[in-house]
Amino acid sequence: MTNSPIVTDVAIIGAGPAGLFAAFECSMLKMRSLLIDALDNVGGQCTALYPEKPIYDIPAHPAITAQELIESLEKQIKPFSIPRLLSHQIIELKGEKGNFQLTTHKRLDIHAKAVIIAVGAGAFGPNRPPLDNIEVYEKTGHIQYYVRRSDQFIGKNIVIAGGGDSAIDWALALKDKANHIDLIHRRDRFRASPESLSRLDAAIAEGKIQKIVPYQLKELHGENGILQSVEVATMDGETKKLKTDYLLAFFGLSTDLGPLDKWNIEKTAGKIPVNPSNGESSLPGVFAIGDISIYPGKLKLILQGFSEAATVAHGIYPIIYPDTALHFEYSTTQGVPNT
Amino acid sequence: MTNSPIVTDVAIIGAGPAGLFAAFECSMLKMRSLLIDALDNVGGQCTALYPEKPIYDIPAHPAITAQELIESLEKQIKPFSIPRLLSHQIIELKGEKGNFQLTTHKRLDIHAKAVIIAVGAGAFGPNRPPLDNIEVYEKTGHIQYYVRRSDQFIGKNIVIAGGGDSAIDWALALKDKANHIDLIHRRDRFRASPESLSRLDAAIAEGKIQKIVPYQLKELHGENGILQSVEVATMDGETKKLKTDYLLAFFGLSTDLGPLDKWNIEKTAGKIPVNPSNGESSLPGVFAIGDISIYPGKLKLILQGFSEAATVAHGIYPIIYPDTALHFEYSTTQGVPNT
Repeated sequence: MTNSPIVTDVAIIGAGPAGLFAAFECSMLKMRSLLIDALDNVGGQCTALYPEKPIYDIPAHPAITAQELIESLEKQIKPFSIPRLLSHQIIELKGEKGNFQLTTHKRLDIHAKAVIIAVGAGAFGPNRPPLDNIEVYEKTGHIQYYVRRSDQFIGKNIVIAGGGDSAIDWALALKDKANHIDLIHRRDRFRASPESLSRLDAAIAEGKIQKIVPYQLKELHGENGILQSVEVATMDGETKKLKTDYLLAFFGLSTDLGPLDKWNIEKTAGKIPVNPSNGESSLPGVFAIGDISIYPGKLKLILQGFSEAATVAHGIYPIIYPDTALHFEYSTTQGVPNT
Repeated sequence: MTNSPIVTDVAIIGAGPAGLFAAFECSMLKMRSLLIDALDNVGGQCTALYPEKPIYDIPAHPAITAQELIESLEKQIKPFSIPRLLSHQIIELKGEKGNFQLTTHKRLDIHAKAVIIAVGAGAFGPNRPPLDNIEVYEKTGHIQYYVRRSDQFIGKNIVIAGGGDSAIDWALALKDKANHIDLIHRRDRFRASPESLSRLDAAIAEGKIQKIVPYQLKELHGENGILQSVEVATMDGETKKLKTDYLLAFFGLSTDLGPLDKWNIEKTAGKIPVNPSNGESSLPGVFAIGDISIYPGKLKLILQGFSEAATVAHGIYPIIYPDTALHFEYSTTQGVPNT
């Protein structure tokens, strides 16, 4: 069976915040786009990893959670009815500027004149500790690697494992909801801002968080997927058993650029260098925005991904409309359809 | 009498959206800033020229009026209590990177280590038609050059003069509020998007707007500052008297960079070229963002002004903290004070 290809002007690989806003900017310039993501939902890391985390540096949003940010972007692009291809990973990219063929792992073909790569850190998953039977507790939700709903921890005992920002942020965020939090780390030094560290010290002094250092995870104890305790050990073999309902493990992300690594696009330390004036990669017609792109002065901010989305849309315009000079217009002049 | 100087890290000249967000980004990096504006209010053109106009291309704001945008930015910087110097125009800039002295037209001195120029199009004012007694009607509000409150026109007769976007946008925006609108222009061709022009044709066909072309403003008639009619004339001297309550004149802006023109900063066609990787102008320690800055690929979008604000804050950091490597942090890690 052969599917007939999807035909569009601009294939946008990655439907996180930068990809979503790129679809908006393409639409404002009357270019058709297709949003493609390997996940079954738009929003990328915002939705998958930290939906409840408040973000403070999106302009004109004093505070907005990652989930709300994605919902606002979805509302913003809704008038354009931009097609989406979710749960599809692009495994092949062929052709050239003006005539690309992309193929997904489900063997669906896409024809596009230009490509925007907005894959962030790539496909991502948590680094999982090497513990026996861990899958059982993952399935029941007694072991988690990201917090999607903090309310489930109200009144519960939690072991939080890890020594970086995520472990400390979540320990602080949950300290007033949980009954008790044990924070375990293999060293007595945490990597976080001075501000967070002093808040952690205060919470420890208050008795809301107990620091268990230097210990590592050793064994899980429980029945029928219900976690009862976590056994931890020092390097010298000294052990402790921590009674708990949940284990939250924050050992960072393993990311994987997947097939992108094989494409004929220049990469530097896992990033795609682009021409900052139009966002184009070393492969003409292929553009990159957001966390995956790099150029002098690049900051890893969602805000800059948005700005890059505007830049690449204008950079792509001459490919889609080679004979039309772009008359720059403010959104206030034309508005968006159906609003 | 001598005022003692205001001492700050970063002097931000211009408190429009880009300047306001630059103050936020400086604060996030723990640099003190001072917002300076020649107007008596923050917001720049957004507040002064088109407060009620909806903007559609601010990320994660499907639609926001210029006034709401400024209010949101004000709320966002509120926790930092950033000092403001309004109704002050900077007339002098002396010194060098790390040690600038700025002087306002009221002879107030400011000492700053770095300067961000965010003056947009510069000081601006409407182009006023050369009509006798026009000041009288300007004072009473019967002649206006920007619409600050559209509700005052409910049920009124309006003459709108001008042939560009503003004239047409406001004719369309007010057609269902006003009793009658006469749209006068010296030619029979309007400069606007095809979309706006077809909406104008429809409104004319409906009788909501009457097109008076090719006519120019000739005389104002009224009593005690109350406008009664506007006399218009063709090039051949043919005249018409249009009964009206208000005259809205949209003949564009006259802008003036003022004393900035005399400073030793390279300019190209009225813009300040900057290094896109840090936003620095040809004068070390002086940075430019927003509509006044130019670099390859620059788009005149509020969004890009925001992104440039983040770039310059990081560019300025080594001037304020020469001995500290900047540990890049997400807003989610530290948050903002008092929130």
